Amino acid sequence: MQTYKPQRFSAEQYAEAILKEDRIMLARAITLIESSLEKDQLIAEKLIEYLLPHTGNSLRIGITGVPGVGKSSFIESFGEYIIEQTQSKLAVLAIDPTSQKSRGSILGDKTRMEKLSQNPQCFIRPSPAGNSLGGIAKKTRESLLLCEAAGFNLIFIETVGVGQSEVLVSEMTDFFLLLMLAGAGDELQGIKKGIMEMADLLVITKADGENKLKSLEAKQNYQNALHLFRANEMDWHPPVTTCSALYKEGLENILFLIKQYIKSSKEKGFFEKKRQKQQIDWFRQTLKESLVDYFFRNEGFQKTIIEAEQSILEQKKDAFGAVREILGKYLQTKD
Amino acid sequence: MQTYKPQRFSAEQYAEAILKEDRIMLARAITLIESSLEKDQLIAEKLIEYLLPHTGNSLRIGITGVPGVGKSSFIESFGEYIIEQTQSKLAVLAIDPTSQKSRGSILGDKTRMEKLSQNPQCFIRPSPAGNSLGGIAKKTRESLLLCEAAGFNLIFIETVGVGQSEVLVSEMTDFFLLLMLAGAGDELQGIKKGIMEMADLLVITKADGENKLKSLEAKQNYQNALHLFRANEMDWHPPVTTCSALYKEGLENILFLIKQYIKSSKEKGFFEKKRQKQQIDWFRQTLKESLVDYFFRNEGFQKTIIEAEQSILEQKKDAFGAVREILGKYLQTKD
Repeated sequence: MQTYKPQRFSAEQYAEAILKEDRIMLARAITLIESSLEKDQLIAEKLIEYLLPHTGNSLRIGITGVPGVGKSSFIESFGEYIIEQTQSKLAVLAIDPTSQKSRGSILGDKTRMEKLSQNPQCFIRPSPAGNSLGGIAKKTRESLLLCEAAGFNLIFIETVGVGQSEVLVSEMTDFFLLLMLAGAGDELQGIKKGIMEMADLLVITKADGENKLKSLEAKQNYQNALHLFRANEMDWHPPVTTCSALYKEGLENILFLIKQYIKSSKEKGFFEKKRQKQQIDWFRQTLKESLVDYFFRNEGFQKTIIEAEQSILEQKKDAFGAVREILGKYLQTKD
Repeated sequence: MQTYKPQRFSAEQYAEAILKEDRIMLARAITLIESSLEKDQLIAEKLIEYLLPHTGNSLRIGITGVPGVGKSSFIESFGEYIIEQTQSKLAVLAIDPTSQKSRGSILGDKTRMEKLSQNPQCFIRPSPAGNSLGGIAKKTRESLLLCEAAGFNLIFIETVGVGQSEVLVSEMTDFFLLLMLAGAGDELQGIKKGIMEMADLLVITKADGENKLKSLEAKQNYQNALHLFRANEMDWHPPVTTCSALYKEGLENILFLIKQYIKSSKEKGFFEKKRQKQQIDWFRQTLKESLVDYFFRNEGFQKTIIEAEQSILEQKKDAFGAVREILGKYLQTKD
């Protein structure tokens, strides 16, 4: 295997190629976004700014579920189906908070979705590695914008793992689809409830063969459970449905429900409202990161931090005292 | 039920009571830490600073596992056992990233660990709610310090959910214990590998009754799988063991393995090194948050942000442009 050597272009070059739907340059631009080098970051920022007017035109769908639920098979089947039915151009992005230590995705996403990855209407990008989930989410959000600028009008954001990443994904998508497994332990575990509350649609996967009956039972159970939840702002009660990725069953109904939700969401102004909120959240997040970066990139500040760390390790200072001192030195004291 | 009205004390009052091992004041102080009010935060900060010299004397154990693995039963059984064997005072804290929307823990942790919660040697605190996992982790870390100051020499930090929270917990504990279930889908799913790499000990739970044989098989499988991993810095190969919380089997061995790890970790200087790294990470995290807070608490800055948000929604500005403008206004431009 060859070592990957990133080739750098200007923001204008990337932008021009992406608007021409050049996938190689799209992939390279995402690599640029994922880079933590300051000079890459500056180009990336400029690039996104160029492309912003060409973004926002896709339907963004978050897809999640516990490990083993069959996310890849579902995305493979449903992706193929939706491309065929709606002539969409589909980009699949992933957020995987568990790939921290080993860096990079554990399973190459491409090999997980063999057929879909060969579909010319589809672009699959594995999860970026990162130091923080917030950082990974930021990169994913920015990659999403690039994909939109490159003409993808349907984006799947898949989460690997259960917990916080769902919250982040629900904050950057229009529709949130939760995959569930029939009879996998308690039907209503605490963990699921928290995530179920965020879902716009619940799909019981692997509803085939000897699992079929169990899936229909599970569907009933989940439906009953959901009655205990409040409806969301737009008065949508998340439906529960079953599906077999293997036999491509239930896909039609899922697409129908998504379309129904989006239609109602747009009519009620909820779609636009949610997007606006996401935009504001993104702005605030970017602002916070930029503030921190501004200081941490300053040489004098870096030196001060390292000195403070030394004092902390030698127990001459405690963390809070050191923070106060640094704030006092670099910022005006508040009155 | 009465509405909870927080009663405020001075940092000195909290500190004095906590050092006298007053649990009611400990619980109140944790509530203070969890508060997002600025005035509470200022007292909390002072309090932690007072107590810091009295912290660090506990063994900090992270406990995680997928939903349904039996974390509560394990903690109940193992907690009772370890208190009995080592005369420890045990505090159990939880990180639950899924309780975002509904706020507050979904299941009261106390009811989940009925016997343990009645043990006078034990203090159980449910998961704080929060806006970000980082924020929740920060609160948990600070609660941990308070528990140490209150004389607890053993801390369990339980994570609910799978993914990023494990990373955070492994960054604040000395020992990381991963609970696993025999025969729950693929033995080596991607999600598990990422977390398995962080584990210092793997425990197969529910190894009783008709599950016993399957558990022993799973143990063998995991052991084989772990051979593919690199040993960690201190050359520790995470062992795999089985346990039945129901019949209190395997607990002795788990305690033995933990003791062995800690002994070796201390001898090799790894224990101290890890703690130091955690201290530095914590300092940096606190510094970053304080920087952001400094600006976001400033009235003029708040006004500027709101104006920028308006411009973004009216599409007069994009997020990056707005961030640059704000940085230019509030910080000296970099050259």
